[in-house]
Amino acid sequence: MERHHFEQELQALKNRLLNMGALVEERVHQAIQALMGRSLEQADAIVRGDQEVNALQIEIDDRCLKLLALQQPMASDLRLITAAMKINADLERIGDQAVNVAENAIKLMAAPPLKPLLDLPRMAEMAERMTRDSLDAFVRRDSALAREVLGRDDEVDGLKDTIFRVLLTYMMADPGTIERALALILISRNLERIADHATNIAEDVIFLVEARDVRHHHEERMLP
Amino acid sequence: MERHHFEQELQALKNRLLNMGALVEERVHQAIQALMGRSLEQADAIVRGDQEVNALQIEIDDRCLKLLALQQPMASDLRLITAAMKINADLERIGDQAVNVAENAIKLMAAPPLKPLLDLPRMAEMAERMTRDSLDAFVRRDSALAREVLGRDDEVDGLKDTIFRVLLTYMMADPGTIERALALILISRNLERIADHATNIAEDVIFLVEARDVRHHHEERMLP
Repeated sequence: MERHHFEQELQALKNRLLNMGALVEERVHQAIQALMGRSLEQADAIVRGDQEVNALQIEIDDRCLKLLALQQPMASDLRLITAAMKINADLERIGDQAVNVAENAIKLMAAPPLKPLLDLPRMAEMAERMTRDSLDAFVRRDSALAREVLGRDDEVDGLKDTIFRVLLTYMMADPGTIERALALILISRNLERIADHATNIAEDVIFLVEARDVRHHHEERMLP
Repeated sequence: MERHHFEQELQALKNRLLNMGALVEERVHQAIQALMGRSLEQADAIVRGDQEVNALQIEIDDRCLKLLALQQPMASDLRLITAAMKINADLERIGDQAVNVAENAIKLMAAPPLKPLLDLPRMAEMAERMTRDSLDAFVRRDSALAREVLGRDDEVDGLKDTIFRVLLTYMMADPGTIERALALILISRNLERIADHATNIAEDVIFLVEARDVRHHHEERMLP
């Protein structure tokens, strides 16, 4: 494969990863919409639609393997392609969490609504944005943006802790809320996992862009 | 690099992955020992020792990149090496969870023990074993063993749910136990994550060994 064609294929790979990111982000969004609107139909569609994510993951993995196989890539291209494979895996797992959110939302629909959903929609928005920004950071090789994404993970964890504590007080005040509070707690954990995957992607980007620096810093810290 | 040397390097890569697996498994084990023995010293050692895991991850990643760069590998070797990179990332995250267990164990040491630790030690043992077996499945290309690991994930989830429900009753009976019950619940989630990472590794092994079958099966399921 000549260099020009190789560059085109790399660009196509990046575009497909962006598509994958947009797809899983949209599915997280729809799952939270289903939760908020108590729409069984919408939640069911998310649970049933995971196939599309899996198919895209396989396609992207194939593209990566072909790029690795067809030409002896330069070191920087190798790092890019292998980072794409890792990011692809994290995106697929974000898709899995969208399914988990939808399944927990369906459980909640079996009983009257417990309460407004606290900070869950905000937490979802943050996790979606972290996903989008970590991917943008990858495509633009923007390690500053990737570091910013890392910084937001603590905020998501803070929201998760707040939600947990509030729901705990509900449960203790009225055992009749336990099942529903549990489902909401689990959804907050699903969203936390999504933010964690976005954090993983951001770390891959930093490694990709600043490989030597990271290691140097690492070696310094190894000294007693 | 001649083929014979390449095979030797592949074998060395597998050995280092096994070392990495043994290291993080041992760290999970030590973190649970620290919890059971209420040993602040042991827990501290786990929190401080994550550097060793990170260093090994970087070394293994480097080996993979070099193998990809030095020779135009065959398709099956490419899949093996890229699977090794994904598995390496999952192992590093298991190491992170060992740190989280140790940190939660330290929180628990600030107050008198709540109770026997329920099924937490058993859950830890299962997660450790899943990690070990998924890696063995990789090295031996044993997709049957990998499928067995997948099957165990539900059992771990069951233990996690049981632990959650028991601790919830403690909290509701005595609000003074809330902080400690929360820390135990979080540890059960840390262990669940470890089992999830082992499951990811097992899935990578199945894809590696049965790539075509998985896809064929997948395409069948795409039909309406």
